[in-house]
Amino acid sequence: MPKKITIYDIAKEAGVSAATVSRAITGRGYVSEKNKILILSLVDKYNFRPNTFARNLKTGYTKMIGFIVPHIGNMYFANVYYEFEKWASSYGYMTILLNSKGDYEVESNLLKALIEKHVDGIVMMGGRIDASNLPEDYIKEINEIRKQIPFVACGAKTERFNCSGIYTDDEKGVEELLVYLKNRGYQRITLIGGGDEFIPSYIKKQKAISIAEKLGLDVSVRWLTGNEVFSNRAGYEGMKILLKENPRPEVVCGINDYVAMGAIKAVMEAGLNIPMDIAITGFDDVSIATMTPVQITTVSPRYEYFGKKVFGSLHKMIKNKTDNHSKMTLIKPELVIRNSTR
Amino acid sequence: MPKKITIYDIAKEAGVSAATVSRAITGRGYVSEKNKILILSLVDKYNFRPNTFARNLKTGYTKMIGFIVPHIGNMYFANVYYEFEKWASSYGYMTILLNSKGDYEVESNLLKALIEKHVDGIVMMGGRIDASNLPEDYIKEINEIRKQIPFVACGAKTERFNCSGIYTDDEKGVEELLVYLKNRGYQRITLIGGGDEFIPSYIKKQKAISIAEKLGLDVSVRWLTGNEVFSNRAGYEGMKILLKENPRPEVVCGINDYVAMGAIKAVMEAGLNIPMDIAITGFDDVSIATMTPVQITTVSPRYEYFGKKVFGSLHKMIKNKTDNHSKMTLIKPELVIRNSTR
Repeated sequence: MPKKITIYDIAKEAGVSAATVSRAITGRGYVSEKNKILILSLVDKYNFRPNTFARNLKTGYTKMIGFIVPHIGNMYFANVYYEFEKWASSYGYMTILLNSKGDYEVESNLLKALIEKHVDGIVMMGGRIDASNLPEDYIKEINEIRKQIPFVACGAKTERFNCSGIYTDDEKGVEELLVYLKNRGYQRITLIGGGDEFIPSYIKKQKAISIAEKLGLDVSVRWLTGNEVFSNRAGYEGMKILLKENPRPEVVCGINDYVAMGAIKAVMEAGLNIPMDIAITGFDDVSIATMTPVQITTVSPRYEYFGKKVFGSLHKMIKNKTDNHSKMTLIKPELVIRNSTR
Repeated sequence: MPKKITIYDIAKEAGVSAATVSRAITGRGYVSEKNKILILSLVDKYNFRPNTFARNLKTGYTKMIGFIVPHIGNMYFANVYYEFEKWASSYGYMTILLNSKGDYEVESNLLKALIEKHVDGIVMMGGRIDASNLPEDYIKEINEIRKQIPFVACGAKTERFNCSGIYTDDEKGVEELLVYLKNRGYQRITLIGGGDEFIPSYIKKQKAISIAEKLGLDVSVRWLTGNEVFSNRAGYEGMKILLKENPRPEVVCGINDYVAMGAIKAVMEAGLNIPMDIAITGFDDVSIATMTPVQITTVSPRYEYFGKKVFGSLHKMIKNKTDNHSKMTLIKPELVIRNSTR
């Protein structure tokens, strides 16, 4: 095969910048008449088509991927995105990152916009993917989209969407955490943060209750209400209530590390010692879990592997033009023991 | 003007999904022969061109923006991106978010890829933008790009690039912080984290020294060495060294909140009280600054306003097809007083 002509080859031969070549071709922005004629004659000579158009018209690919998260300021999503984007870039894909605030209507608008852009595939996290009581229309929308375009949902079980899903094995994570806590001699354990309306929370709760029975542990679940059940503040307020109870739990497991950090703050303000007076654990292993005076025992989704799997799964569908109907990939999480438990 | 025909109008009239229309047009993926003929006849009838092509060929716009950061897992960049993307989306732009790791060569590759994608504009943060001793080639590259395509650098002073720049007024931030500390009765102050090779650190250091002289404060600067001078670990290690000194500083100012958090951890491990035994401050006001047992007094870049300004500045250049040659916009930062200072 002859070497593929790039915009840089044209630019070099014409003695102009790549951007000038681009402008001459798209007709956008100023190019001198002399350069325009020169460039367009070279374009003809080499039958050169700029990538964006060429891919669209010839191969049908845009080499673009859409990635929707609720809020990139949440380190869980930022970590998955970072690892995903590393792989996407290395395969020549550019990823559009959109924030949905977890709002279903915003998600619909963003999905439409991505389809209009002819992205080669879409990854979606949070929002409707994790919602327990999702109106039928929002399920159907994903069902339609995943038939038309490679689509990967990640974070929660996604059978109802009939799409490919990559998610952390939360049941395994809860089991490992509780077995570890039992082995360390803990008995009274309370889960805080989250809510039944979020599938990952619900899965963790159900598993915690069933494992507790098996292991003979005293496990209770105190979900929080309001809009920010996964926040630091939720953990702080939830912990303040628990501290007034008698007997107090021996371990408080935050539904994520933000909630765990909030709980730690409340415990320290009460003048108690972690882990001697009370132990705290989290989920997700975001970087802050090691930045606090007390480092948090947590369950890691193994971001590097996770992000690689998400890209790999999407890329396979793009390349093979297949629809991996309801293919679920479970990522085994990893228990990370630090000093918030004794 | 007649209503612009969209892919949804074609889909509705053909009784198929928008994605099916897209596949019929691009020739990518399966469409039944019957539907293909129907769709393509409607495309002809309405002279419909899908957006991606239409915008490229007719208006010259792709409605795409490229945004390069070193690492989206750093909350400073994630916060700016979130606010920026909110505005970009609301104006119909899709933003490609790329991680450069702050590596100049990676940045060059990403810039080339974005230009090949014909993005309407580029925003760049960190990496070469903040570098003090940047090889001439990397300066020239930006200089060339900003002539061809709307380009905004943000975070540091950018005169040498001759491009538009949006940055926090770090001098003002340092001044407000030191005046506040003096008013609270502090005298011996040490800056840690950062390094002269980063322009924002250098600016902060120079300003701290000159303000100290004016206010009669005893200010010293202890930069760190190594690759991660802005990290939690850097703050932790740096603080451990300072704690051995006699006399100890009364206030340790981290170059950012990550460094401040690391310093807090070292102080608490040493059994000292913040702010009674030693005060700590940060910069950037990332969310973790309020999540720790000790909440960090810090300097906020006012993300909402910052992100809006970055988008506004880029959008103006895109709309007017102008090059805001070296237009610098300084954002006045805000001192946020919390309980890590008395």
